[in-house]
Amino acid sequence: MTIQTVSTNKSYGGVQGVYRHASSATKTDMTFSVYVPPHQDGAKLPVVWYLSGLTCTHANVTEKGEFRRACAELGLIFVAPDTSPRGADVPGDPNNAYDFGLGAGFYVDATQEPFARNYHMWSYVTDELPRLVAEHFPVDAKRQSVMGHSMGGHGALTVALRNPHRYRAASAFAPIVAPSQVPWGTKALTGYLGPNKETWRAHDTVALIEDGAKYSGFLVDYGDADNFLTEQLRPELLQAACTKANLPLTLRRQPGYDHSYYFISTFMSDHLHWHAARLTA
Amino acid sequence: MTIQTVSTNKSYGGVQGVYRHASSATKTDMTFSVYVPPHQDGAKLPVVWYLSGLTCTHANVTEKGEFRRACAELGLIFVAPDTSPRGADVPGDPNNAYDFGLGAGFYVDATQEPFARNYHMWSYVTDELPRLVAEHFPVDAKRQSVMGHSMGGHGALTVALRNPHRYRAASAFAPIVAPSQVPWGTKALTGYLGPNKETWRAHDTVALIEDGAKYSGFLVDYGDADNFLTEQLRPELLQAACTKANLPLTLRRQPGYDHSYYFISTFMSDHLHWHAARLTA
Repeated sequence: MTIQTVSTNKSYGGVQGVYRHASSATKTDMTFSVYVPPHQDGAKLPVVWYLSGLTCTHANVTEKGEFRRACAELGLIFVAPDTSPRGADVPGDPNNAYDFGLGAGFYVDATQEPFARNYHMWSYVTDELPRLVAEHFPVDAKRQSVMGHSMGGHGALTVALRNPHRYRAASAFAPIVAPSQVPWGTKALTGYLGPNKETWRAHDTVALIEDGAKYSGFLVDYGDADNFLTEQLRPELLQAACTKANLPLTLRRQPGYDHSYYFISTFMSDHLHWHAARLTA
Repeated sequence: MTIQTVSTNKSYGGVQGVYRHASSATKTDMTFSVYVPPHQDGAKLPVVWYLSGLTCTHANVTEKGEFRRACAELGLIFVAPDTSPRGADVPGDPNNAYDFGLGAGFYVDATQEPFARNYHMWSYVTDELPRLVAEHFPVDAKRQSVMGHSMGGHGALTVALRNPHRYRAASAFAPIVAPSQVPWGTKALTGYLGPNKETWRAHDTVALIEDGAKYSGFLVDYGDADNFLTEQLRPELLQAACTKANLPLTLRRQPGYDHSYYFISTFMSDHLHWHAARLTA
């Protein structure tokens, strides 16, 4: 598998790169970013996957996430994929809404037309891109973890719950925790997976926990001034499911913070330290 | 003087705001950003002015500068003005070039038509905006400092040299140090100030130092992979002028770094600590 370098910039002693490749999972070109911290020649480093939210590309967190300082200090590779396939031939939301289609892949493999051909973001972020990154960057594949924001928080938690041995840590900023129960999620899961709600449970954090998925614990931050909190995010549903299942959850309500990267960047270093403690243990 | 709040977001315990006002200096609406760190009620805080480079608005450093963590730790207000007047009635470069006109005010008060009406960025950043900010934010006007990038590094150093008692510290990332001697500068100074090079000396760091301006010392970083280094920036001219005038200069060549915010953000914390040491002494 080959990749094309779009750009590289030295930052905090390491290299922030942006790369493009022809994806077999999405049948499109896909762009992603990788930060490789300063390291000794030949070293293999742990890798943190960051899954972004609605409307984002790799660029949002790469420019605004303020992760490089902590990644350089802790020796973490940081990978940020796109949030959907893109291109002139890729179908989007019929009404060009922001919450479905382009920029809104929801980290599932679509089974419904016209999305089934390209919208394979689950396979992309859990299979194809990890293999590609391991081939081209100094990754220790035994030490991976995953985090995300909003729709990407949903992605991070479901990816971790279904691959608990591969991802040693998982955290989220303002995640969608129960897509089956909220407007963003019901629209997306209906569109990509169809109306049978049984097929949704494998892509719903609360449902996965109810169905017996185990994990070593999550760190989740949300802001109490987040406009999406009560309708779309509903962290209380995650709290209840984790309590019932005895799944360790560190859930932090951050007073005055909203849904933006001003919130994410504030707590990014906390999350990376949480990941590093589990990746280097 | 009134201001309109465009947006506020909590970040690192403080508030990142964006504001708009009707400027008498530029006779346009102007937008700027202010970060106010967490502080005790009634406290008056030191303020760091950040002057941006060609093509930028307040938004570039606000989104990519990674200054809030250090400002919160050190108790610094951080203000980022725009780089030129803007608006449908504001004349720009006749060829829409990026290095003159809109986004390229060069921190001078233009005397040449058609720019003399609006392009008064010197008065704006040294007079009008400081008064406005002092009126609306918890600023200790006795403790101000200034930094900038590229064209804004030129701005920061000239502002400090001509107001050494007001700005207690000054630093720059990849500054233009001798605009009279490089293509960006000669184009801009000719366009705004006319062909008489004597009028340029008050807006040329090297010339100001040659003409006897004093300052307590500068911190300047540049990357040796900066595409503009040898033609436009020429830090060796600043080194020579400071050595001859016995003006303290900490000039750091950063290997592998370029002209981007990936460079700036890497060293932002260093610069803010430099400023804080001088603002709180």
